[in-house]
Amino acid sequence: MNNFTFYSPTLFAFGDGEEQNTGALVRRFGGTKVLLVYGGGSVKKNGAYDAVTAALEAVGLPYIELSGIQANPRSGKVYEGIELARQNSCDFILALGGGSVIDTAKAIGFSVGYDGDFWDFFTGKAKIEGTLPVGVVLTIAAAGSEGSDSCVITQERGNLKWGCPKTDLIRPKFSVLDPRLTCSLPAYQTASGAVDMLAHICERYFSNTPDVALTDRLCEALLKTIVEAAPKAIAAPGDYAPRADLMWAGMLAHNNSCGVGRVQDWASHQIEHELSAFYDCAHGAGLAVVMPAWMEYVCNHDVMRFARFAVNVFGCEMDFAHPENTAKEGIARLREFFRALGMPTTLSEIGGREEDIPAMVTHRAEKPNGFPFGGFVKIGPEEMESILRLTVRG
Amino acid sequence: MNNFTFYSPTLFAFGDGEEQNTGALVRRFGGTKVLLVYGGGSVKKNGAYDAVTAALEAVGLPYIELSGIQANPRSGKVYEGIELARQNSCDFILALGGGSVIDTAKAIGFSVGYDGDFWDFFTGKAKIEGTLPVGVVLTIAAAGSEGSDSCVITQERGNLKWGCPKTDLIRPKFSVLDPRLTCSLPAYQTASGAVDMLAHICERYFSNTPDVALTDRLCEALLKTIVEAAPKAIAAPGDYAPRADLMWAGMLAHNNSCGVGRVQDWASHQIEHELSAFYDCAHGAGLAVVMPAWMEYVCNHDVMRFARFAVNVFGCEMDFAHPENTAKEGIARLREFFRALGMPTTLSEIGGREEDIPAMVTHRAEKPNGFPFGGFVKIGPEEMESILRLTVRG
Repeated sequence: MNNFTFYSPTLFAFGDGEEQNTGALVRRFGGTKVLLVYGGGSVKKNGAYDAVTAALEAVGLPYIELSGIQANPRSGKVYEGIELARQNSCDFILALGGGSVIDTAKAIGFSVGYDGDFWDFFTGKAKIEGTLPVGVVLTIAAAGSEGSDSCVITQERGNLKWGCPKTDLIRPKFSVLDPRLTCSLPAYQTASGAVDMLAHICERYFSNTPDVALTDRLCEALLKTIVEAAPKAIAAPGDYAPRADLMWAGMLAHNNSCGVGRVQDWASHQIEHELSAFYDCAHGAGLAVVMPAWMEYVCNHDVMRFARFAVNVFGCEMDFAHPENTAKEGIARLREFFRALGMPTTLSEIGGREEDIPAMVTHRAEKPNGFPFGGFVKIGPEEMESILRLTVRG
Repeated sequence: MNNFTFYSPTLFAFGDGEEQNTGALVRRFGGTKVLLVYGGGSVKKNGAYDAVTAALEAVGLPYIELSGIQANPRSGKVYEGIELARQNSCDFILALGGGSVIDTAKAIGFSVGYDGDFWDFFTGKAKIEGTLPVGVVLTIAAAGSEGSDSCVITQERGNLKWGCPKTDLIRPKFSVLDPRLTCSLPAYQTASGAVDMLAHICERYFSNTPDVALTDRLCEALLKTIVEAAPKAIAAPGDYAPRADLMWAGMLAHNNSCGVGRVQDWASHQIEHELSAFYDCAHGAGLAVVMPAWMEYVCNHDVMRFARFAVNVFGCEMDFAHPENTAKEGIARLREFFRALGMPTTLSEIGGREEDIPAMVTHRAEKPNGFPFGGFVKIGPEEMESILRLTVRG
């Protein structure tokens, strides 16, 4: 186990109806004027918007709205939010939505007090040293941004989907997690979310760091729960129990509870960011395409770890004479699991084209520190191209 | 899953040598004059005291010392610490030790600003509404107080071992967890610590709350890791890896990560507090005596849960025709595990006498809300007596 710092000072208010406490939570963390950030119609249809604005009004909190945040959140809305927050002297950013809304809120939060271009924080020209407090009312179990130290934005100039450097400063002050609010999600979004959180754990699970027995088991506990709960949530969207499992698992999958003390991988995420940038696919859908291909490509690096994954997550029987068969079976089971959820597992299913692959690799190379990446297996341009080619047949 | 709030805003600095950052951490959380609380000679022998005081001096932090804290920490040292902190205008309490030292530091922290008797917070006469910041450098993996919202003190007037009401306000600001500092512990203390953390998880695991698949698995991940690591740590005290597993498991076992959203039990702890009060035994030793007896007594309440415990924690084979046999095997395996660690499993081994049992029950009854207790099975005076009688043969 490596040395680590773990600091997750977010208050989580979890359960049915908890969004009614949003106003009190904003007050508790010092907010007096709120920038309320959300996406489109879904939060108005499912009652979340009404519940949250009523909760703000109940404690006399004024709020300004920034709506229209889309999946793969774009820089335009960040610039707009920064201006709105400044003009209205907002001192608290409240995100009502999923990862895209939260990441937009985070980016606004740490940029309001900065005179330059907010993108400077992503390029390394500026360093995050503070933020307006950010609170969250979560409406999809997926990205884990409600508890995480990260933030990913797509810069429209250059179509760059980049993350800012991770810092505990940008963890939300509070996150309200009401599983009920996710019951009205379309199956595709529920499934994309499950893939995303599953990927967040796999990025941590596949590690070369020795002596990490405890976090290995925590990872497996989360993975098994997601594999069990996601099909239930899709089969019976209104059932509370699987929604609750997914919602808490999604947070734990990315607040680093199960990733401390180990070198993490993140290659699949890096590759997927190019898919999202090129095809604007759902992040989870892109991961469903990339991750099994990445696993096939790197499997021989540590066959026994993939065999363990197969046995402990998917209940495969261990082939002690041929562990590589068990390892492969686990990857096949993961791909089947994605397909059963209605997720794409080939490049073409997300609108991708094999002839774009070299361009995606080039686009990645233009990023500062573009290559190599990956903590489990180092991925250079050739490896990235090979992995992407494996997504063609899926 | 029940609604819950989870708020664990403690910074954990984990790993070899991390105590060298103690001074910087105290500064980060606003300390300018420190009350340094510790026990006896062990922290001076193992170098922890020297490292921590050097770290304070390196950043120019003055400190006053309160030493001599013993196991089952007593009210006298709390009164002494409150006076010391006031006289010296300390604005930060630093605990260097295990649960007893940390709980003493917490009690001082939330009492310095209160004019009345600090015991008022334990009787309910006063409510904790703030505290001086408390930091921790942990030297034994056991109580979990380094991340918890609880504090247990023995009031010498009346020999009352009571906990204050749980509140997130008293969670430490930071905790330094260096597994190396635990390598010099005697085997008995290492074992007591393992039992304590194992009990903290069992108190959460045995629950009647339905739909808690995720926390069930997190509990099992922790339990398996402790059962695996504790014998290794005792067999090879200087090995870092099992010490690291135990240290992080001990924190997670009691910061409520694996207990959210479920009614918890805590009957074994309540009964053990009487053993500690009567015989001043190590808390872990008392739990090793009580917990298997409690399990035998309540097993029929939910045989399948005890069977699951046997299979998923101890790897017992499930007897599908007679699950009660598997359930009993799990309890027997737990008792064997305690014995193999060198722990007592009978009342007489901790110096207890069967004829004291009625007096322990009476002593419990004198506590406010003394009976019934236990979230899994309600324990009244008769049940407590029956469980204690089961500890006679062990």
